[in-house]
Amino acid sequence: MKGIGNMKEKIIETSIELFDRKGFKETSVQEIVEAIGVTKGAFYYYFKSKEELLKDICISYIEDLLEQQQRILQDSEKSCTKKLYEIVYMLIRNIKARRKSARIFFREMRHLHEDHLQEIKAKRRVFRQHYQQLIEAGIARGEFKPTLTPDMITFGILGITNWSYYWFQPDGEISEEALTDIYVDLILNGIKNRESLKEK
Amino acid sequence: MKGIGNMKEKIIETSIELFDRKGFKETSVQEIVEAIGVTKGAFYYYFKSKEELLKDICISYIEDLLEQQQRILQDSEKSCTKKLYEIVYMLIRNIKARRKSARIFFREMRHLHEDHLQEIKAKRRVFRQHYQQLIEAGIARGEFKPTLTPDMITFGILGITNWSYYWFQPDGEISEEALTDIYVDLILNGIKNRESLKEK
Repeated sequence: MKGIGNMKEKIIETSIELFDRKGFKETSVQEIVEAIGVTKGAFYYYFKSKEELLKDICISYIEDLLEQQQRILQDSEKSCTKKLYEIVYMLIRNIKARRKSARIFFREMRHLHEDHLQEIKAKRRVFRQHYQQLIEAGIARGEFKPTLTPDMITFGILGITNWSYYWFQPDGEISEEALTDIYVDLILNGIKNRESLKEK
Repeated sequence: MKGIGNMKEKIIETSIELFDRKGFKETSVQEIVEAIGVTKGAFYYYFKSKEELLKDICISYIEDLLEQQQRILQDSEKSCTKKLYEIVYMLIRNIKARRKSARIFFREMRHLHEDHLQEIKAKRRVFRQHYQQLIEAGIARGEFKPTLTPDMITFGILGITNWSYYWFQPDGEISEEALTDIYVDLILNGIKNRESLKEK
């Protein structure tokens, strides 16, 4: 039934809006259902608790990223450099659709019950490990420097894109494609002016 | 009077502890004073409100960073590359002493009153602008590539270190110096294996 699916979706969307603006703890189930114009009964038909709704938001956010990452990584035709580009692009493009979910993910995760928190942290760890394996594969293939420290480099690369969730305006002056180009160039080549050094 | 100074410091330290663990909204003034073993009167002697205390924590965090950054930037003897290294090192070293303040800064800032929020955002902007001016100076001096987009590169570089506040363990396997070396090398030279390309 489409109507039921829509109601669950509506609760999730409205909650993402409210959790992002006011915070998870500061948003009551009452406020969520009032914003949609339904009863608390409708809420508890879909979610055992507000905490379970938060878990669903976080799980859905990270699982979506994992699926997109998997699609990119499994293509055996592409170089590691190309895959790196595509993951950076995927993460930056994702801001438009998922910025609020991302902020809730990073900011409100600590309000989850311990078992839910561990479940989500495990998925987040898989995302990072797959990223790191890409760096390691790139080193093995001679695309990336053999001297790299893959785990630390992975955290650094993740930092570049994760941080963009806090400031990047997808409808602003610079496009998602242009920002991806800038960041992949930073990651691959750095900022040092090698031309000038050669001349000297 | 040393005793009074200590009490204010104690309130701030205890609040940082509680705000980080439980969240700003979830921590009451009552809990803060109970944790120290004083009365609410002691709290309100130093702070008009819990919000003002949060403002003080955020202001002190960003002003401290600005001062350290200024000390590094004003040295006219040093190259821009060296200054970049020192800012990255300063931010990573800062994790040990200020991680909890940093997390409160990033996570709880939205609970500040509008005028306080603007005051803090202005200081944060200055930090970023000074960083960007360093990139621009490095380009002008031929140290960094002339093709860089300084504002976007600055956000990217900031992302690398800001993100480390979420995962880096100062007492863990890798030292602050080693992590700084890895990140400055990433920023300056990137991960691409140029040796291998030359051979082909």
